[in-house]
Amino acid sequence: MAQTSIILRIELDHQVVSFGDVAATIARAGGDIISIDVIRPGKDSSVRDITVDVADTAEASIVDSLKAQAGIKLVNVSDRAFLAHLGGKIEIQPKLPIKNRDDLSRVYTPGVAKVCTAIHENPMKAYSLTIKRNTVAVVSDGTAVLGLGDIGPYGAAPVMEGKAMLFKQLAGVDAFPICLDTTDTEEIIRTIKAIAPIFGGINLEDISAPRCFEIESRLADEMDIPVFHDDQHGTAVVVIAGLLNALKVTGKRAEHIRVVVNGIGAAGVSICKMLLNAGVTRLVPVDRHGAIVRGGQYEHPMWQWLADQPQVEDTSGSLQEVIVGADVFIGVSRGKLLTSADIKRMSHEPIVFAMANPEPEISPEEALPHAAVYATGRSDYANQINNVLVFPGLFRGVLDCRARRINEPMKLAASRAIAAVISEKELNNYYIIPSIFNEMVVTNVRKAVIEAAILTGVARRTPPEFG
Amino acid sequence: MAQTSIILRIELDHQVVSFGDVAATIARAGGDIISIDVIRPGKDSSVRDITVDVADTAEASIVDSLKAQAGIKLVNVSDRAFLAHLGGKIEIQPKLPIKNRDDLSRVYTPGVAKVCTAIHENPMKAYSLTIKRNTVAVVSDGTAVLGLGDIGPYGAAPVMEGKAMLFKQLAGVDAFPICLDTTDTEEIIRTIKAIAPIFGGINLEDISAPRCFEIESRLADEMDIPVFHDDQHGTAVVVIAGLLNALKVTGKRAEHIRVVVNGIGAAGVSICKMLLNAGVTRLVPVDRHGAIVRGGQYEHPMWQWLADQPQVEDTSGSLQEVIVGADVFIGVSRGKLLTSADIKRMSHEPIVFAMANPEPEISPEEALPHAAVYATGRSDYANQINNVLVFPGLFRGVLDCRARRINEPMKLAASRAIAAVISEKELNNYYIIPSIFNEMVVTNVRKAVIEAAILTGVARRTPPEFG
Repeated sequence: MAQTSIILRIELDHQVVSFGDVAATIARAGGDIISIDVIRPGKDSSVRDITVDVADTAEASIVDSLKAQAGIKLVNVSDRAFLAHLGGKIEIQPKLPIKNRDDLSRVYTPGVAKVCTAIHENPMKAYSLTIKRNTVAVVSDGTAVLGLGDIGPYGAAPVMEGKAMLFKQLAGVDAFPICLDTTDTEEIIRTIKAIAPIFGGINLEDISAPRCFEIESRLADEMDIPVFHDDQHGTAVVVIAGLLNALKVTGKRAEHIRVVVNGIGAAGVSICKMLLNAGVTRLVPVDRHGAIVRGGQYEHPMWQWLADQPQVEDTSGSLQEVIVGADVFIGVSRGKLLTSADIKRMSHEPIVFAMANPEPEISPEEALPHAAVYATGRSDYANQINNVLVFPGLFRGVLDCRARRINEPMKLAASRAIAAVISEKELNNYYIIPSIFNEMVVTNVRKAVIEAAILTGVARRTPPEFG
Repeated sequence: MAQTSIILRIELDHQVVSFGDVAATIARAGGDIISIDVIRPGKDSSVRDITVDVADTAEASIVDSLKAQAGIKLVNVSDRAFLAHLGGKIEIQPKLPIKNRDDLSRVYTPGVAKVCTAIHENPMKAYSLTIKRNTVAVVSDGTAVLGLGDIGPYGAAPVMEGKAMLFKQLAGVDAFPICLDTTDTEEIIRTIKAIAPIFGGINLEDISAPRCFEIESRLADEMDIPVFHDDQHGTAVVVIAGLLNALKVTGKRAEHIRVVVNGIGAAGVSICKMLLNAGVTRLVPVDRHGAIVRGGQYEHPMWQWLADQPQVEDTSGSLQEVIVGADVFIGVSRGKLLTSADIKRMSHEPIVFAMANPEPEISPEEALPHAAVYATGRSDYANQINNVLVFPGLFRGVLDCRARRINEPMKLAASRAIAAVISEKELNNYYIIPSIFNEMVVTNVRKAVIEAAILTGVARRTPPEFG
């Protein structure tokens, strides 16, 4: 049973209630008092912070019991997650101290003037003389945050800050959160282009479909720094990495498999594209209305694009119909869409990636008796498909080679690099995806991305070790 | 004579020249070789970094001598200012490490979700649970950078980064540079409003007049976070601080003095407004065409505003004419506009602030025989008028009290706080402005700004020590 620490800030009316009563209430509700800090002492009333260890399941009952008790005002409840967020999770640090006039004249006026002039004369010098070389914007409009949906730019900020932490900790990339107070496609594009000069790359995050497609492709075409919508391609890169290893485990080959992708949103489209680039010849994209068929007419431009691909099958049907005989199911849709009966009707040794969040399309308990390989987005099962495997190493690579953009070969290279972190010996049905804390991940992804950028002509710098 | 260190990256053709020849050339031109690093060894040619100590004045002659010598290719010359800028001057740091799955689940998924939800339900919680509480954007379009003019957003970046360093080092404020790839007033306003949610304040910087006036006032009206154009108000706040002390030194009073302000651009307008708020009753604003007179008709809206003020004099004339009998001259215009004869024609014990950059309106050598107090923007004379005295403490204050905006009383409070750093005993003609490294400055300015914000109703939080 998961335990957590919470801090209860309580105002006591001493006429009505004693601290002993409060302690008894907390204990009865299952809490274990660890410490008490008096925030405001007083004769008639006082304010205290009470730190309590409690089972996750009992937190609500403590809060309810305290609220019900006379003479107690529950000012605030903070758990460990809230405490970790107080004041935000990142900060800006000078790289050099400014201790005296001499330091000041070097990093600020008057010394800074000749550096400004040098960049003005040759803007590419921004890469050596400003933070552009190592800095990425993590940009969201807050319309599709985690499983929470459209919670706006303020609510999105903690995710973007968390991402900035991961960028720095895992790959040494400086990332700054930009939370947009607009959901208009054109205004988002205009805003990102306007603030681009200080950044070496743009990581788009949690922007809802279909706007995310146009925003990303327009920005990629109209700017000379790389743009990456993590919800589309981050997921896709890890899915392909996992699939490459799942195919090895089951002895199947990309050219021969039949793949059903369910949920043609931001991630689904990118997964389909990468599957085609990876050599898959039989693809069945499925959305709410059933399979998208080759030759069909669709209003949604991405569905139409899929319908125009020769590798997409031309048989219509519901998910339950088209999954029959499939080698691979990839779900980025909704929870509980499949049953074990559906998995039984797939081909021999089926591969199931059920990534709906927080509830997968089918649970491992139901899928695993029949599936050869099972993966989800959850951290409490084996084979977690986690974007954190991708963006740190990918941006480390594109920054180091000053890539103009991120293309399909670079993404496939990242997938192959992630897959290759697991050696042939280690590989098995329950270990097709490396841990995000495996230090080889960033190193391998960076290297592969730089190689692919050089080969496809989008690198503007060759790092020394690739010379 | 000022010495500097430079690093010369040199490619040698060994058939033509030896390293001994290079060393001799450098020595002859006045350089002192400190160290040599071989960057790329080779039989036929090699690349070396040579660190040389040299007088500022001799740097060019070393470069020229080396360029003239056969067999040498001068790849790059970096001086200490350039070296301090390599890779940029600031970085982003996580406040907590992410060492394991447990840490990750607190600052990122899944723990972050409830923090996002809490902010979504009450956006003011962004101030406690995100970096908004302590973070300022330093925004420039690069149109009026230092004395360099319109050098664009890439060239402006080193100044904005330097400012971010000062914000952190002097006042613990996290500041991030935003360099705008647009000079359109409406687009700048739209862009800043769009990216505002993560920031607790906006410091506008080096945006040319007259666009800077509308950009600042529109943003201040349309956003609920404070906006401060440093070139306007930072300078004005220090000028008023210096003037308050200069009046003490000379025994004059604001109500009785006649003040000539020359140069009615970004800083000049703000200085005039602050002078009126500080109680000055006889003001003569002067621009290129001479004095702006009360009752006159002007196209420039700020000039018209001045012409409508009852304290502005109604006598026209050139600078040389109107300065006769003035108690105070404040110049934010061009170098060498005044002579010692002009200062002689001012009133008894005249006060001269000559802040044109890099050459003041009149040099201290010419002014001081006749002026009682002289101040400039330069660090090599006494009484330096430097914005660095203002923005760190001012933003520390507005962030700590979550001020909705920065109003005139808050600016005047900042001026008075800066002036008060110098005690009556210390005060003299050559010490009217404290050093930017005086630690009392930020503390005093912060306190005064918070008090004024509370009194004028723009504070949304009362810091505990003000309760």
